[in-house]
Amino acid sequence: MSIVVADIKRADPEIAASLAAYGVATVHEAQGRVGLLHHRLRPIYRGATISGTAVTCTLPPGDNWMIHVAAEQCQPGDILVAAPISEAHSGYFGDLLGTSLMARGVKGLVLDAGCRDIGDLEKMGFPVWSRSICAHGTVKETLGEVNVPVSCGDALICPGDVIVADDDGVVVVPRQKAAEVKKAAEARIAKEEKSRARYQAGELGLDVNKMRGRLQEKGLTYVTQAAWEKGQ
Amino acid sequence: MSIVVADIKRADPEIAASLAAYGVATVHEAQGRVGLLHHRLRPIYRGATISGTAVTCTLPPGDNWMIHVAAEQCQPGDILVAAPISEAHSGYFGDLLGTSLMARGVKGLVLDAGCRDIGDLEKMGFPVWSRSICAHGTVKETLGEVNVPVSCGDALICPGDVIVADDDGVVVVPRQKAAEVKKAAEARIAKEEKSRARYQAGELGLDVNKMRGRLQEKGLTYVTQAAWEKGQ
Amino acid sequence: MSIVVADIKRADPEIAASLAAYGVATVHEAQGRVGLLHHRLRPIYRGATISGTAVTCTLPPGDNWMIHVAAEQCQPGDILVAAPISEAHSGYFGDLLGTSLMARGVKGLVLDAGCRDIGDLEKMGFPVWSRSICAHGTVKETLGEVNVPVSCGDALICPGDVIVADDDGVVVVPRQKAAEVKKAAEARIAKEEKSRARYQAGELGLDVNKMRGRLQEKGLTYVTQAAWEKGQ
Amino acid sequence: MSIVVADIKRADPEIAASLAAYGVATVHEAQGRVGLLHHRLRPIYRGATISGTAVTCTLPPGDNWMIHVAAEQCQPGDILVAAPISEAHSGYFGDLLGTSLMARGVKGLVLDAGCRDIGDLEKMGFPVWSRSICAHGTVKETLGEVNVPVSCGDALICPGDVIVADDDGVVVVPRQKAAEVKKAAEARIAKEEKSRARYQAGELGLDVNKMRGRLQEKGLTYVTQAAWEKGQ
Amino acid sequence: MSIVVADIKRADPEIAASLAAYGVATVHEAQGRVGLLHHRLRPIYRGATISGTAVTCTLPPGDNWMIHVAAEQCQPGDILVAAPISEAHSGYFGDLLGTSLMARGVKGLVLDAGCRDIGDLEKMGFPVWSRSICAHGTVKETLGEVNVPVSCGDALICPGDVIVADDDGVVVVPRQKAAEVKKAAEARIAKEEKSRARYQAGELGLDVNKMRGRLQEKGLTYVTQAAWEKGQ
Amino acid sequence: MSIVVADIKRADPEIAASLAAYGVATVHEAQGRVGLLHHRLRPIYRGATISGTAVTCTLPPGDNWMIHVAAEQCQPGDILVAAPISEAHSGYFGDLLGTSLMARGVKGLVLDAGCRDIGDLEKMGFPVWSRSICAHGTVKETLGEVNVPVSCGDALICPGDVIVADDDGVVVVPRQKAAEVKKAAEARIAKEEKSRARYQAGELGLDVNKMRGRLQEKGLTYVTQAAWEKGQ
Repeated sequence: MSIVVADIKRADPEIAASLAAYGVATVHEAQGRVGLLHHRLRPIYRGATISGTAVTCTLPPGDNWMIHVAAEQCQPGDILVAAPISEAHSGYFGDLLGTSLMARGVKGLVLDAGCRDIGDLEKMGFPVWSRSICAHGTVKETLGEVNVPVSCGDALICPGDVIVADDDGVVVVPRQKAAEVKKAAEARIAKEEKSRARYQAGELGLDVNKMRGRLQEKGLTYVTQAAWEKGQ
Repeated sequence: MSIVVADIKRADPEIAASLAAYGVATVHEAQGRVGLLHHRLRPIYRGATISGTAVTCTLPPGDNWMIHVAAEQCQPGDILVAAPISEAHSGYFGDLLGTSLMARGVKGLVLDAGCRDIGDLEKMGFPVWSRSICAHGTVKETLGEVNVPVSCGDALICPGDVIVADDDGVVVVPRQKAAEVKKAAEARIAKEEKSRARYQAGELGLDVNKMRGRLQEKGLTYVTQAAWEKGQ
Repeated sequence: MSIVVADIKRADPEIAASLAAYGVATVHEAQGRVGLLHHRLRPIYRGATISGTAVTCTLPPGDNWMIHVAAEQCQPGDILVAAPISEAHSGYFGDLLGTSLMARGVKGLVLDAGCRDIGDLEKMGFPVWSRSICAHGTVKETLGEVNVPVSCGDALICPGDVIVADDDGVVVVPRQKAAEVKKAAEARIAKEEKSRARYQAGELGLDVNKMRGRLQEKGLTYVTQAAWEKGQ
Repeated sequence: MSIVVADIKRADPEIAASLAAYGVATVHEAQGRVGLLHHRLRPIYRGATISGTAVTCTLPPGDNWMIHVAAEQCQPGDILVAAPISEAHSGYFGDLLGTSLMARGVKGLVLDAGCRDIGDLEKMGFPVWSRSICAHGTVKETLGEVNVPVSCGDALICPGDVIVADDDGVVVVPRQKAAEVKKAAEARIAKEEKSRARYQAGELGLDVNKMRGRLQEKGLTYVTQAAWEKGQ
Repeated sequence: MSIVVADIKRADPEIAASLAAYGVATVHEAQGRVGLLHHRLRPIYRGATISGTAVTCTLPPGDNWMIHVAAEQCQPGDILVAAPISEAHSGYFGDLLGTSLMARGVKGLVLDAGCRDIGDLEKMGFPVWSRSICAHGTVKETLGEVNVPVSCGDALICPGDVIVADDDGVVVVPRQKAAEVKKAAEARIAKEEKSRARYQAGELGLDVNKMRGRLQEKGLTYVTQAAWEKGQ
Repeated sequence: MSIVVADIKRADPEIAASLAAYGVATVHEAQGRVGLLHHRLRPIYRGATISGTAVTCTLPPGDNWMIHVAAEQCQPGDILVAAPISEAHSGYFGDLLGTSLMARGVKGLVLDAGCRDIGDLEKMGFPVWSRSICAHGTVKETLGEVNVPVSCGDALICPGDVIVADDDGVVVVPRQKAAEVKKAAEARIAKEEKSRARYQAGELGLDVNKMRGRLQEKGLTYVTQAAWEKGQ
């Protein structure tokens, strides 16, 4: 028996939508350096930044049937997260499914497998983060599941969690932590702005972050080239 | 003894040239989901779409001599298909050879190895689908063969076959099937246009493709979150 | 004890800066096809070409502390070369460190590990050649070394050597050979210009490079399709 | 805050221990072809087959501290499942930790990262399924979590689930399904025994599985070599 | 329409069987360093050496149906060559199919995809050269072809060709060249025996192969450590 | 001009030979977790442990000529370290060269490329750590260098350094540090023996290494399953 969970709880949609503004690297840092998906997931084109609530599905090898089933569960503001249960590079997704998801207000797709029609998807402005770009077609024979917790890109994603994706990759924020992570991201941005100004003025990270003492304690030693060569 | 076959039969040049308009994914579907080259072959720049007739050659490890031999066998409308006989990432091809092939009317190169001078090739508008981008030079010491059937990108390509390449990758259409595949691609495009209109109007793939009955037969079951959690 | 060598000898800065004009492939050929870094090092955005003198550092797994230490050793015209001592994909470098290095006149970064904030780095115009794009944060706990010879991208790089990087990849020129390589690169460019004109006029590499005799000696044989098929 | 869940529910220990007898491939089939971990997880030596209940932990990059924390949560019959939160190849585990886990009755380790001391671990008879074999040491600076659901080898594993591992790889069986999967595995073994006897007697899969009709319906056609060549 | 060619011409069975004695490296050299399959094809266990005539089939993604169809076309002395048309790691082959092929006198399998039940296959003594070891099951829904030329492991293999496989990998010898390659392999073995005796006696390759003159011509220069350091 | 340095200084041969007894992981730890070669270098057969002094050479793509040149520079107790200047998988080394090196007292080979004749090399007992196993032959056309510092397996190796290799991989110890590393390795072994006894007696790493306080400070918190679920 394969399951579709039809009434998932989603993270607050405003908070979910707002996290895109901080970017993947900052959100990942803000929640304590967890939740990043594997860097094998790359955007099919550069420059898109999105955030939204996850609808999840699992995909059998070479079979994209469940993406159609999952599409019905999507609401405006969602991001579809599609996780194959075995390494696969076939093109599970193309411009027709992209048209369908756009029509439903879905912001993008995270797909740990192959994507095709990437030229058309770029023209349409429907962003996908995928493992491969591959035109090989898929079949519709075997069921998977929709809106259950999935392992995608070596990360655990529950339906309703917040997904943030940009050129740096993809990060997941658990539904219950979205508000807290938003606050931490704001604080981090503010702090980084101050550091940036100092870096632009030519100050070194060694001083901005007060690292010199600890480096010395650990034994960092400055020598001349001549001294170094003599030691070799 | 190494062979150059000098008078190969080519697919009809008009049909060959026309397949680019359908794109790789559609042509691949139209001929029954066969003939796609491995997705490790990627364009060195985005946005080019070409189709044409294959001139083939094999390449010894780190040796690009046969590309020069193959260039002489090329006619306007051809696409050169270069297949190393052992995994290799050296830069077998650069802007000088690109200049030579362009001067002969060759539309592009499919190379299951490394390519270099990619900035210049992009400026010239000579597209290459390659396995790697690598500047390492090659030697000219060992023979290969020209215009024999080759294994390139995990696909079997005969001289004179049609090659179609775009941002999605590369597909080969056997010479004898080019006309038939063109018809099937046209039919597929027409059908997709109809589906696209329905998707844009918000219809679901479940309904456009009448999938609901078969999903139910296979055992797909819709449950509430509460029911799902109880079952865990 | 970890070492920072503080007074390295650099290649002549004018020569170092001038090598960018020849590009990676030509410089690599000009010094006898050695010194190319592995093609896994790719630019985080297309179109940048730089050359300059190397400041080197080693990086413990998941720890970017030494980039801060190395930043202080950088002068205008330098390129930072950062080499992890174990395969790593974490994001060792982002826009804040990029701001710091730009403020110091550093031309770019070669990093055999992960980079993040690539959208911001592209906007700033600070080019990085990296192994991965990955937002995973790093710690600051363990020392490495600065301005010692390093193994980066499967190549040996000494502090003060010249680095050239463009869309084709990265090449290192030993400090002592920079002037000689510059001359050889100039000569190569001049020779290539002549060949290019002949290629553009439709001449074949077989004739431009006088290859026909040697190919025949090695046994290259031209046959008809009919003869080939009979031989199968 | 990092969490250790200290009183997890485990699958029935007898059932968990009994699944090893069926092997990974059969258990995977018996539960409907789900739950297999990625094939990048390979045994460090051949011939071990184990099954048991999962204790899980997450691992920061290059940091094996949480394996020590997790060790305390292990009981006889458990299998430790250690999941890095970012791709990592360092040697998180060696013979000392192996000695500790053996002393506590742990049957083996599933580690989606690097393992070292594999010669000693083989002599001791403590099996590990790992992503890499790598001696690079790790630090003890950053917390992870113990006995929370983890993504390991592209699969979702909850504490208390059953793990089965042999030369074919690793599969997870959810705690709640262990009894049902055991029954299905038994049935499958019985059926396979019958098929095996027929195969040994020289019968073909086409007949054992009554495939001929369906193949014909799908259009499979038998031709002579002469006919095939004429069609080319 | 999918084709099974039912009456292929095979290489002389005695010659085919005899090539195993020379090993893969020698046969590959003897036919001019062509025909080696990609090194990603590895034996599932060490120590088997086989040679025989190829029966070929293509495999759709995640679908092993055609192995059953191909089994019927196999005769004693054959080696089955199974080539997926898209990168795939699922376990297309296990002990039941191994039992069936052994019962028909097949010597082994070359499979550019995943294999499972490797412990049982080793016990049975049925050798497989595969791309992956993976237990993920396959379906039986889509046709491929049997006994047509295939691209397997980046090499072109025709039905009836000779396959040789050992711990070094897999090589294909075209049917028409089997006798000639056998002679060349014999000659090579004889020559190597003489060289081996000289190497065992402490002679250097520089002298056994008379390389010193040509090395000097190319510019090889012997220097002292002191001279080298001065040059740096 | 290509260089052979003919009179390199070697580490003390007794110390070099003695490091094998400590194994790769321990030596790597003893010198401060540096010097490990990339884990892509794997032994061609299990169970060999060697240590000795490095003779180094660089290898052009697909060209093994310099291994012959380097052989002459080897003395009993040496280990040959062969580093391609571009990623390569061809079989640069086989049983004839193995015979030659054995006859000269060389203990083994570290080769960041392909190796062949692995069955014969295992029978002879000549161990090789290589990147690939591949039978593809190489040519003898292009020079490299012998006994210069090389980048091999992402590590910097100078001629005369000590190499230690076992089933865990390969580590390099700079010539000048060999004696100091030996002492540190001895101390580490002694300390590990004490820890091992405590682990065997069932003590936890948490107590053996007094970790509990620091874990608590960092915020590690023990909760019940019920509490954890409520927090989700």
